[in-house]
Amino acid sequence: MATTDLIFASRDAHRAWLTSQAKLPKGFRVGVTRFEFVPAEAPKPAKMAITVIASDTPSPAFAAMFTRNAFPGAPVIVGRQRLGEAALGAIVINNKISNVCAPGGVADSEAICAEAGRLLNIPASAVLPSSTGVIGWKLPVAQMLPAMPGAVDALSDAHGILPAAEGICTTDLYPKIRRIDLPGGSIVGIAKGAGMIEPNLATMLVYILTDLRIARDDLRASLSEAVGTTFNRMTIDSDTSTSDTVVAWSSGLGGAVTTADFTAALRQVCADLTEDVVRNGEGVHHVVRYRVSGAPDAATATAIGKSIANSPLFQCALCGNDPNVGRLVAAIGKEAGARWPGLDLSHLRLAVGGIEVFSQQAFRLDRSKETALVAHMKSAELYVSVPPADGLTFRPPVSWPPHERSVLVEIDLGTGLASAEVLGADRTHEYISENADYRS
Amino acid sequence: MATTDLIFASRDAHRAWLTSQAKLPKGFRVGVTRFEFVPAEAPKPAKMAITVIASDTPSPAFAAMFTRNAFPGAPVIVGRQRLGEAALGAIVINNKISNVCAPGGVADSEAICAEAGRLLNIPASAVLPSSTGVIGWKLPVAQMLPAMPGAVDALSDAHGILPAAEGICTTDLYPKIRRIDLPGGSIVGIAKGAGMIEPNLATMLVYILTDLRIARDDLRASLSEAVGTTFNRMTIDSDTSTSDTVVAWSSGLGGAVTTADFTAALRQVCADLTEDVVRNGEGVHHVVRYRVSGAPDAATATAIGKSIANSPLFQCALCGNDPNVGRLVAAIGKEAGARWPGLDLSHLRLAVGGIEVFSQQAFRLDRSKETALVAHMKSAELYVSVPPADGLTFRPPVSWPPHERSVLVEIDLGTGLASAEVLGADRTHEYISENADYRS
Repeated sequence: MATTDLIFASRDAHRAWLTSQAKLPKGFRVGVTRFEFVPAEAPKPAKMAITVIASDTPSPAFAAMFTRNAFPGAPVIVGRQRLGEAALGAIVINNKISNVCAPGGVADSEAICAEAGRLLNIPASAVLPSSTGVIGWKLPVAQMLPAMPGAVDALSDAHGILPAAEGICTTDLYPKIRRIDLPGGSIVGIAKGAGMIEPNLATMLVYILTDLRIARDDLRASLSEAVGTTFNRMTIDSDTSTSDTVVAWSSGLGGAVTTADFTAALRQVCADLTEDVVRNGEGVHHVVRYRVSGAPDAATATAIGKSIANSPLFQCALCGNDPNVGRLVAAIGKEAGARWPGLDLSHLRLAVGGIEVFSQQAFRLDRSKETALVAHMKSAELYVSVPPADGLTFRPPVSWPPHERSVLVEIDLGTGLASAEVLGADRTHEYISENADYRS
Repeated sequence: MATTDLIFASRDAHRAWLTSQAKLPKGFRVGVTRFEFVPAEAPKPAKMAITVIASDTPSPAFAAMFTRNAFPGAPVIVGRQRLGEAALGAIVINNKISNVCAPGGVADSEAICAEAGRLLNIPASAVLPSSTGVIGWKLPVAQMLPAMPGAVDALSDAHGILPAAEGICTTDLYPKIRRIDLPGGSIVGIAKGAGMIEPNLATMLVYILTDLRIARDDLRASLSEAVGTTFNRMTIDSDTSTSDTVVAWSSGLGGAVTTADFTAALRQVCADLTEDVVRNGEGVHHVVRYRVSGAPDAATATAIGKSIANSPLFQCALCGNDPNVGRLVAAIGKEAGARWPGLDLSHLRLAVGGIEVFSQQAFRLDRSKETALVAHMKSAELYVSVPPADGLTFRPPVSWPPHERSVLVEIDLGTGLASAEVLGADRTHEYISENADYRS
């Protein structure tokens, strides 16, 4: 999906590149504040960042898509109501606690919006709330309210969107920014990802700003189209979050743009951020591009791609640079056998890294292919595990994306004209360590 | 599901218990042989066991159920044909290579049956083949044929079914045997599990022998009923195998039994084996019993239970004895939001270890509950990870099941009368280590 193919030799090199991408579109500023608090549900102190993204004047041109999880967070419930409001003037985002199904959660979100509105001199209904972090705990509103003036006072465009890209992170190893510059203005997006990632109509938290002049309805249609083939076609752990949110927001202070041009550019920003989110998925060693073609329809193609991408056994094989392509076929057969009974699999052709491994209803394997497959997988490895100091708790040895290479898996069903590309990753010790004790 | 609640202090104690369960029903013998070979697809030598289960005379009373994976192994294709044959006289099982989609796989399976038939003086069509192991590699028929007389010569009832329970293992830590004795005879089953486990109509490899007199049609109906609520309601890694097979086979040499009594007993043996398979799942530290009730129908109940059981994030939390119940709600909401749009979740009630954590549309959490939840999870832990010698490759520190306790998660949907119990497990470093380089 992505057009870029960057290699970063160090964290500093990655940071310099992020800085070069961070310039805000006209009419926006961001501010962040951080503080420590003790959750009501657990005795250990925690740190929270509050990020404010504000437009100089509220703008009617905004779009937002939210999770399809049946237990949406309170900010998602409030956010859906905001879609009917006249204009958007600010987004307030906190990390550490996601405010999902906590008693009084909607009132807590509204209290944050009211305070942000008071500080910015705009209606509370022009403020969109977002929260990410532990599910089940209550938002520490009493500690958040006194911290909010700090974020508003910090509002600035001096460092572009970078402070916001950092402020929304939780287990992310690094901030994620993607931009496109068009003649009349720019589109700049940030994303928070890392875990609980198989978006269903949106992704964790994504905020896309632009100054290009586009009408609300056109912006909403563009976003829906872009999300469908980008964020909705990735998976890290199949766990659709309760907080998935993607917002696109135009200040309208730049030049005009055709909807077609805007949609194409927006789709590219979404595609690039999608890759960033997978690449920085919890414990990810390999990004994998599942290119499904020859399918009867896009739904089938996407489902087959996701079935492989979510197969724990194939994920583990990828981690070990083990071309265990039998698990590929098992994952396709699992999905087809369970959900697509009419699907003709007799023309299936599989290739990994361009090397054919299955055709004419049988595997096509030999020892030289095995060697080449291992080499392809190793070439796309982001890092290898480092034995942990305590013998048990694995941490990634890098805090930047070393490169943008991926493992290519091609699945040609040979029965139709539809295709889909699904982005996935491997499953590693670092994912287990991250999530076996996330809250401590 | 299981009636037993055993605690084993050592491998020897477990082995003594297995021996006490191993007596064969009248009319059956088992034999095993082992040999080394070099696969055509990889240079490293591998070990294979060939297990033969034979009846003194072929019997028409046999039943078999197979995987719904759309790429079934060659032995499954052959096995389905055998269901139409007059009688079953022998089962031949090999481990290490599963013979799935390998060129000429069906002919290879038939060659094994022909040789077994020749040695046992029965038709090849009375021999059921089974294979488990690496998918994609070709069965080493040239090396297997000369080894087969060894297995047939070893046929005996001296050690009961234990040699067969051992012979079919791959990554299993220990053999699995369950029995029930009725007035007229016995039912004895063995299972091979460990990985690629979310059966769809059957499980990896399960063989159940009985001498109770039951007609073929009744046996097949009983098996179908028993499997539906046992093997089909467990998951270790959501990866439905290409080789799932469960066989029930009566010699008819014992007493008569009513179909109702037989089905109840068969169901118990299946339920016990199901628990054994999960307990010995690859890397499993915790068995988890998801008891879903108040559902509109059994399909919904099962789907909700499996959605949680297959949630990588909740699996990891279990591994860390971390009662991150927010991930429970996220997993239910993911499934409901994606597939059960009409489902009313407003009456949801959740309890873990009998402790209520969610009711009246919100979490009910405090610090004392947190402490009690951790204690419940720790009480069901089978083992804790041991830092590996090489810093990376985790291996389970036990080779027997220390106890039969489990984590209890109760999900009351409060909207209907249907219920289902799903068995699942956690996700651990040992699973990653096992599967990141399974074939080497």
